[in-house]
Amino acid sequence: MSYQAPVKDLLFNIEHLANIEAVAQLPGFEDAGLETAQAVLQECAKFNQDVVAPLNVAGDTHPSSFKDGQVTTTPGFKDAFKQYAAGGWQGLQHDADYGGQGLPKTIGAACQEMLNSANLSFALCPLLTDGAIEALVTAGSDTLKATYLEKLISGEWTGTMNLTEPQAGSDLALVRSRAEPQPDGSYKVFGTKIFITYGEHDMAENIIHLVLARVQGAPEGVKGISLFVVPKFLVNADGSLGERNDAHCVSIEHKLGIKASPTAVLQFGDNGGAVGYLVGEENRGLEYMFIMMNAARYAVGLQGIAVSERSYQQAVAYARERVQSRPVDGSVKGSATIIHHPDVRRMLMTMRALIEGTRATAMTAAAAYDAAHKHPDAQVRQDNQAFYEFMVPLVKGYSTEISQEVTALGVQVHGGMGFIEETGSAQHYRDCKILTIYEGTTAIQANDLVGRKTGRDGGVAAKSIAAQIEKTEGELQALGTAAAQAVARELAAARQAFVDVVEFMVANGRESPNAAFAGSVPYLMLAGNLVAGWNLGRALLVADKQLANGQDKAFYQAKIITAQFYAEHILPRTAALRSAILNGGESVMALDMDDF
Amino acid sequence: MSYQAPVKDLLFNIEHLANIEAVAQLPGFEDAGLETAQAVLQECAKFNQDVVAPLNVAGDTHPSSFKDGQVTTTPGFKDAFKQYAAGGWQGLQHDADYGGQGLPKTIGAACQEMLNSANLSFALCPLLTDGAIEALVTAGSDTLKATYLEKLISGEWTGTMNLTEPQAGSDLALVRSRAEPQPDGSYKVFGTKIFITYGEHDMAENIIHLVLARVQGAPEGVKGISLFVVPKFLVNADGSLGERNDAHCVSIEHKLGIKASPTAVLQFGDNGGAVGYLVGEENRGLEYMFIMMNAARYAVGLQGIAVSERSYQQAVAYARERVQSRPVDGSVKGSATIIHHPDVRRMLMTMRALIEGTRATAMTAAAAYDAAHKHPDAQVRQDNQAFYEFMVPLVKGYSTEISQEVTALGVQVHGGMGFIEETGSAQHYRDCKILTIYEGTTAIQANDLVGRKTGRDGGVAAKSIAAQIEKTEGELQALGTAAAQAVARELAAARQAFVDVVEFMVANGRESPNAAFAGSVPYLMLAGNLVAGWNLGRALLVADKQLANGQDKAFYQAKIITAQFYAEHILPRTAALRSAILNGGESVMALDMDDF
Repeated sequence: MSYQAPVKDLLFNIEHLANIEAVAQLPGFEDAGLETAQAVLQECAKFNQDVVAPLNVAGDTHPSSFKDGQVTTTPGFKDAFKQYAAGGWQGLQHDADYGGQGLPKTIGAACQEMLNSANLSFALCPLLTDGAIEALVTAGSDTLKATYLEKLISGEWTGTMNLTEPQAGSDLALVRSRAEPQPDGSYKVFGTKIFITYGEHDMAENIIHLVLARVQGAPEGVKGISLFVVPKFLVNADGSLGERNDAHCVSIEHKLGIKASPTAVLQFGDNGGAVGYLVGEENRGLEYMFIMMNAARYAVGLQGIAVSERSYQQAVAYARERVQSRPVDGSVKGSATIIHHPDVRRMLMTMRALIEGTRATAMTAAAAYDAAHKHPDAQVRQDNQAFYEFMVPLVKGYSTEISQEVTALGVQVHGGMGFIEETGSAQHYRDCKILTIYEGTTAIQANDLVGRKTGRDGGVAAKSIAAQIEKTEGELQALGTAAAQAVARELAAARQAFVDVVEFMVANGRESPNAAFAGSVPYLMLAGNLVAGWNLGRALLVADKQLANGQDKAFYQAKIITAQFYAEHILPRTAALRSAILNGGESVMALDMDDF
Repeated sequence: MSYQAPVKDLLFNIEHLANIEAVAQLPGFEDAGLETAQAVLQECAKFNQDVVAPLNVAGDTHPSSFKDGQVTTTPGFKDAFKQYAAGGWQGLQHDADYGGQGLPKTIGAACQEMLNSANLSFALCPLLTDGAIEALVTAGSDTLKATYLEKLISGEWTGTMNLTEPQAGSDLALVRSRAEPQPDGSYKVFGTKIFITYGEHDMAENIIHLVLARVQGAPEGVKGISLFVVPKFLVNADGSLGERNDAHCVSIEHKLGIKASPTAVLQFGDNGGAVGYLVGEENRGLEYMFIMMNAARYAVGLQGIAVSERSYQQAVAYARERVQSRPVDGSVKGSATIIHHPDVRRMLMTMRALIEGTRATAMTAAAAYDAAHKHPDAQVRQDNQAFYEFMVPLVKGYSTEISQEVTALGVQVHGGMGFIEETGSAQHYRDCKILTIYEGTTAIQANDLVGRKTGRDGGVAAKSIAAQIEKTEGELQALGTAAAQAVARELAAARQAFVDVVEFMVANGRESPNAAFAGSVPYLMLAGNLVAGWNLGRALLVADKQLANGQDKAFYQAKIITAQFYAEHILPRTAALRSAILNGGESVMALDMDDF
């Protein structure tokens, strides 16, 4: 099934919800206005539709394979990655000083969505490389930057994140890998890392592992973790590749989905020690790793939207083609395509509304990221940073959770054919299941939301978002169309539920942590749901104005209908979540552990 | 991962919610009291734990395979099925006149749940055979009964249901297979059937296909469909096997899950015509097929509960063993097993509550089935029949939809390990996806609920259930414990939502069919949710009484906590569904088909 990049909707988001013209006034982004966005997105769409998307099924049927320490990727991946690198796509958002294109996240995020829709497995390699680049930019020495950044940004080399060990998944305090300082200032790194995405592959000349390990004598727990660069091949002074480092892949995993993405077990130091170079200062590794993680978390959120979009497109195509049963309203005599049937429509509208809502949130968050990094006014930077940081767990958690709903509906629309692997819909259902797990499970995102993002400032950031939502409600009420009123009404109810829960979290986060954290994921789902609905409400206001200007009727009417559908069908879920959080804290922990 | 049959909980349901002692007063079930149930369930648990459950992973890793028209099932299946037959399990609920054990559905359903938990793929063969038996018992001639029933009930032969054709899935009006009458009273059957579960295999000597086809000259649509018996091997007058019939498997499907269950494409009549025998009268095939379907729909509902139970057991075991992170309440210094963490508990409680709730509904419905068939008083039979028929779409639709939620949570509890196929949790997530599709998708169940089960009697059956729920609320209020009050409060709100929706459906089913059917699946989910919560409310009342009697404290306290959790966390979803149904009918169909 081919992929058609939703360029029009992405540009709608970029122009109207992320406000690209404001982004283009930020220092350094002067050339990144709407025209640039249009040109980049069109080129990106073409590349992903023509080169990357056609490899998605092959990645599932011919996964990466492992033999004698080597990983062979799916046929076609190596060449596609070469084209990806040659097109400059890896450097889209990175610093022009190192060969990047220095575009804002507002444009970069749209491109990332397309790449992930085209091929979730393929997209993971650039995704992890982005993380490695960000860590080096932030904390690497000039030597490390000079040695690695240009090659990573050009796509000649790729990067990995090495956090997890068999006993240390969500809990990095348990990391045991160790690093021994050497006289020359380098370290020897020893340990086993698991679940390393693209930890070994044949798509690039070198792989730059960023590895968490403890220096001898470091404090216990997360305060004793340092970050190291451990290249697969050492790099000579002239930039050419030197000796093979003592970092080896010993196996890859057999997984439910994203089968083309090799998930490696890496052994460091089995033959004397892997040469590593400290990033930044000792014992600050977790802090640097969080730089990579935060970028990666946002990107995984985009993966949720992306796989949902792909599943939706396939479901729509099938619903337009499959003939079965007479419509209940008698609009067609005899059997009709199943898109005539109300429940098929309900499923497609649910998919569509969830996708457009989460996309609107992600794109709005991207613009805040850009302002947080580049705005000349410190207060504006700070406000945008607070907003962005509140959005990250929602983009990651909500978009990936809803991808499971959307891809399940995608299979369901296909009926029995959905269960047949050759149909292709089931791949999305399998692929997406990792998204709520890696780069921090939904519960980890929710802990972040409850603790750092809500508790720490006493709910200030949360309530400032609620105030912005209330303002949108007012604008919708003022507009006064039936659709706007419906959205305003449901938004008001959902916002009130959100405020109630924020107050509950602030009151209970420290006093009754079990009750608060029992509601953490429901709170994340409530907040993610509300913010998506809010952004669709904003979209409705824009669409109404465009319609009045006589623009592109079908597109803007669809936007209004989708916003109304979201408000009527999805926003009311917030009431159930509020109720569970406020009333249900005790029953979560009441059952004795032995009685499960 | 081994399976421990939940015999205690099943017996609790049989004794207290299904009221087995009342069932044992029905004519023909005199020996089927609690003691019989205990003995049968213990034996059944042992067989399934020891023989069937250990084959579940092998079925996934070594699926049934096809070569030259033959299907070879997973190693171990053939022998296990021999033991299943020898143990008399196929005949559990069937007529003693044909060698069955004649036990009530109240006991049979509990055994079916265990078989399906043990191995969903394996259990499908008996499940389909049950359907064939029921159709023959109801509509078969004496000759057909004499020829086939005993062998099917003994498990020497197995049965299949042949409805689907490439162009005719949910829409049986499109069936094209045809049957030509022969001078000897038999027919020659021609056509292609797809998605035929156990349509070919090596576990039994003969396979008895029940096939929908049109007799020449029959009316168009569903009123021209007849039902035929088409055995794989013809049967000689002395009961021995004769010639191979012209019904051949040409391929089996490559599926997302239940891989051990061969899903066959069958060709009938490619070499001159398959010999078939009419069941009942011509053109009444659909009616007879519904007999099989209704039994099968209930059974698929049990599959949803069963796979959820298996997923739950595996998740609990992992949560008890995996050590990661410090509890937020400081109850353990340092890292603890993840079952200490509130969100893991929330996930496990959600799984548990959904399983116990749907099980309680299924078991209560089974008792109604028994009374509907055997009670001496016609009015009692009729009331129970109406109740049972209302329950069938809920048992099928709600239990299978929640199995997707439960198995996804099962994977999620495992974190990254859940995504690794060898862990085994992902198999349940894959296996369960067919359950909302086959034997009628959730939408088909929901249409049945809206049309035949609610619209036809103007909501009488629905409101009589609401009245029973209200009575339970009163009993809970009278009990007055905090848990009972919480359940009563949430039940009252959910029941009112249900009544509102029932009235909406009655008012709009004919007048505004698009609006009604746009809410059909949400209505099914609302009704299924409510009824499960109600039955857990009934369970709470029993548990409280047993506790007062000093019985088995841990078990009954767990029951009370689970009921309260369900009420506080799951029942509030009904408010969101009510809102979507009552307000959202128009936005479902508002978007033009071309604009998706």
